[in-house]
Amino acid sequence: MASSQPTLNRLVEIDREECMLRLGHSGVGRVAVTVNALPAIFPVNYALLDGDIVFRTGPGTKLDAALAGAVVAFEIDHTDSMSHTGWSVLVVGEARPVTDPNTVTRAAALPLTPWADGRRDTFIRLTTQLVTGRELVYGPGTDGS
Amino acid sequence: MASSQPTLNRLVEIDREECMLRLGHSGVGRVAVTVNALPAIFPVNYALLDGDIVFRTGPGTKLDAALAGAVVAFEIDHTDSMSHTGWSVLVVGEARPVTDPNTVTRAAALPLTPWADGRRDTFIRLTTQLVTGRELVYGPGTDGS
Repeated sequence: MASSQPTLNRLVEIDREECMLRLGHSGVGRVAVTVNALPAIFPVNYALLDGDIVFRTGPGTKLDAALAGAVVAFEIDHTDSMSHTGWSVLVVGEARPVTDPNTVTRAAALPLTPWADGRRDTFIRLTTQLVTGRELVYGPGTDGS
Repeated sequence: MASSQPTLNRLVEIDREECMLRLGHSGVGRVAVTVNALPAIFPVNYALLDGDIVFRTGPGTKLDAALAGAVVAFEIDHTDSMSHTGWSVLVVGEARPVTDPNTVTRAAALPLTPWADGRRDTFIRLTTQLVTGRELVYGPGTDGS
C-alpha cells in the first residue's frame, strides 16, 4: 500500500554485521550515562578492540559509570540534511575499565590519543552484546508505519 | 604551571548564553531515553521554540518517554578531528508532548519536516532548565586537571 506521505524516506533496520562495519575501526561516538540520577550524553573518541568499544577517560562521570559496571548506551550516526537520509547505530552494554595488563597494552596502541589535557589514563571497554541500527533510505515504504 | 602534556588542548565550560547560541535555531541532536530499563540514544531533527527544544515523533520509545514526563538528555556536538578540538552542549529536562493547540500550530511552522514516513505527528518539548557545555580549546591548560 502506498504511504500517505509518498515523498518521505523510509526507516529500515540495519543488521548486526552491517552495524559492526559502520562502527569501523575508530571515530567519535556518544555515550549516555546517568549522573546523579540524571541522564547525560558525552561525545567520546573511540576505537574497536576485539569487536568491543574502547574509549579513554579520566576520573569523572563516565569512569564512575564504568567502574560500577553500569549498562550504558553508545551511539554513532551520520545524517545528510540535503537528502534527508541518515543512519544510527546503537550499542548497549556493560562498561568496565580495562585492567588486564596485556589488554591495557593493546588498548594503548589504539588510535585513542586523548584530545584534552589532564588525566585520561583509563581505558573503558563496552561490550557489543546488543547492537542495533536504523537507516533512513530514499523513497517511501510500503506502509505508513 | 605547565601541563605534563603541553601539546594537548584544554577542556573549558561553555556558559548558558553561549550554549543557547550554539543550539541555534534547528539542527540534528541526540536524545537519551530509557527503553525497557535500558539506555538508548536516538538522533532527532530539532528546533527551538521559545528557548525550548522541540522535536517531532510518532508512537514509540521517544514518545513513550515524553508522555511519562521523563527526564531526558539532549546533546549536540561538533568535533574537528584535524585540530582535536570540539564542543558539546547538553540539555537535561522533562520531555512532554505539546498539547496546547496554539503551541502545536507554532510548532508545525518550525523547520521540522519529518524525514521518515509513518506517523510523526506529535511534537515533544524539552525544557532547557539545565543547559551545560564543554569545549576543547587549543593549547594546554594551566594545570593538569
